[in-house]
Amino acid sequence: MNAPTGRLAESLTLPQPYLLFLGDTAEASFGKTALGLADWARDRCVGELSLPGCNFTTGLPRLSLDEARAAGARSLVIGVANQGGVIGESWLPTLVMAMEAGLDIVSGLHARLASVPALAEAARRTGRRLIDVRVPPSDIPVATGRKRSGKRLLTVGTDCALGKKYTALALHRAFLARNIDADFRATGQTGIMIAGGGMPMDAVVSDFEAGAAEILSPDAPDDHWDLIEGQGSLFNPAYAAVSLGLLHGSQPDVFVVCHDPSREMVLGFDGYAMPSIEEVIDLTIRLGGRTNAAIRCVGVSLNTSAYSEAAAAALIAAEQARLGLPVADPIRGGPAFEALVESCLS
Amino acid sequence: MNAPTGRLAESLTLPQPYLLFLGDTAEASFGKTALGLADWARDRCVGELSLPGCNFTTGLPRLSLDEARAAGARSLVIGVANQGGVIGESWLPTLVMAMEAGLDIVSGLHARLASVPALAEAARRTGRRLIDVRVPPSDIPVATGRKRSGKRLLTVGTDCALGKKYTALALHRAFLARNIDADFRATGQTGIMIAGGGMPMDAVVSDFEAGAAEILSPDAPDDHWDLIEGQGSLFNPAYAAVSLGLLHGSQPDVFVVCHDPSREMVLGFDGYAMPSIEEVIDLTIRLGGRTNAAIRCVGVSLNTSAYSEAAAAALIAAEQARLGLPVADPIRGGPAFEALVESCLS
Repeated sequence: MNAPTGRLAESLTLPQPYLLFLGDTAEASFGKTALGLADWARDRCVGELSLPGCNFTTGLPRLSLDEARAAGARSLVIGVANQGGVIGESWLPTLVMAMEAGLDIVSGLHARLASVPALAEAARRTGRRLIDVRVPPSDIPVATGRKRSGKRLLTVGTDCALGKKYTALALHRAFLARNIDADFRATGQTGIMIAGGGMPMDAVVSDFEAGAAEILSPDAPDDHWDLIEGQGSLFNPAYAAVSLGLLHGSQPDVFVVCHDPSREMVLGFDGYAMPSIEEVIDLTIRLGGRTNAAIRCVGVSLNTSAYSEAAAAALIAAEQARLGLPVADPIRGGPAFEALVESCLS
Repeated sequence: MNAPTGRLAESLTLPQPYLLFLGDTAEASFGKTALGLADWARDRCVGELSLPGCNFTTGLPRLSLDEARAAGARSLVIGVANQGGVIGESWLPTLVMAMEAGLDIVSGLHARLASVPALAEAARRTGRRLIDVRVPPSDIPVATGRKRSGKRLLTVGTDCALGKKYTALALHRAFLARNIDADFRATGQTGIMIAGGGMPMDAVVSDFEAGAAEILSPDAPDDHWDLIEGQGSLFNPAYAAVSLGLLHGSQPDVFVVCHDPSREMVLGFDGYAMPSIEEVIDLTIRLGGRTNAAIRCVGVSLNTSAYSEAAAAALIAAEQARLGLPVADPIRGGPAFEALVESCLS
């Protein structure tokens, strides 16, 4: 175990606004990062840049590098992924020119930007930064367990990839619409790009996992909310360590359980049945209570994308009656979602 | 979250037997690694080497580098720590000469061996290896959750630093004395040096924590036991992520709870009361049951070093009556410890 340090560490911060780079990507399904940014951080994206062969758009203005720079862009974000998470050979001339035009490069791909000699050389020459959002800061301290000021909400899940980021973003938007002082605290690549900063929790060394969550949501005014993007699930046989470190370090006052009722088995793990919403509530309170005894569940976010509107409405009503908690699909919104927001703030 | 890979990864292995290096360390309290090795891996230590200024001994023969090499030593282990975990300037000539004599260098210090230019240069020149046991292998896969063959025991704790390594080692010794096929599986620096290999669980990236535990105790014959050294505690506000990843990936059939009855607060965390043994049993079964539904507690290891022999015996008897489980202090041994061993095997 590592000894606590007295240093003040910070989570990642990214230079905004962005120019979204779509490469020569033929399928929109590989452009989730760019599309997510256009959805959730449109006011911090000046436009998009694509190469011949690309046939999707985020709907943002198509700009040259110089036009993007003139519009205030401070970085080019690689908004597409391809098989294997590598950096496309055909992208390199544009990425080098972007640095020459004064933009930093931001990537969430597996391959590190600086591992590409042409990019490393251009960064040295131009003085621009190569920022991998999968790489955590180097000086993360061990958690202290000290209770911090301000209010915190964490989205937790019955599994991976079923709406924890989306739910936190939707709640953040709803809080801001109510003039509540709130920050979205990102814990994964796409969330970090949307927020312009955060902590890639799954890439942090285990001994520092709770410490990373502590510095992600520092002391704040008493009426300030941090809406923290959850990761994984306490019931996931591979990723529960990430979820528990995030829960302990976040010290949430309240949490929302995210669930996809159409999923029967844990994604990618044969033989592992999904836990029930009640099991997740119970275990989250039990484990989260260690660092915040007042933790409580304020509602459920159902991902009903697999259902018709009528079926989704019936499912939401049935779950709400069964659990005695507000239940909503943030994508469908409506009065159910308003009730979930009110429950968070109650 | 990272995608599972099909690679076969392995835990660390160290070149044995060792020559124990004590440096110029004046106090035996800084020589815990060397003393632990002399206690638990004496048959794999050819001797010790100290510099002027050192005034403690492991009791092993004092050898020159050439004598150690002739006695079969394959590596020199830095068996002492000093303030800050750095590599002593005064040690460097000896470490360089050790490499020239054909020995690899093994270190559990915070500072990486290769970060010292004189050592990096000597390693290049001699072809010897610089092995930091705090550095995990680079190709750890994501956990699969697949049940593995063979039997597994994990020591878990009510806190850090109260006997989880010692208990696993003592059980391993007792199992071997009964001619049971068993391996001690090390998860921390000292344990790894004793075992000659293992996995530094607290240094593994969170996403791979359970995967690291899986490769540490691979498939084995049905009557083979892995005795796995626990780390941290599920109740520790900083290190619970390490403990949960280790628990999920180890898939223990049985576990022993390690506890120090004289400790009232979690080490280093003001305001965090120690959990009860019953709470640890209950939570370990609940969380461990996710990857091995048959998990059960087979007993309790009490660290009674703060008590007189009579007080310790009374404490052990009282806890045993209260919990209805075998309770023993492995350091004190005796019939209570034999009963604990039998319970593990029952």
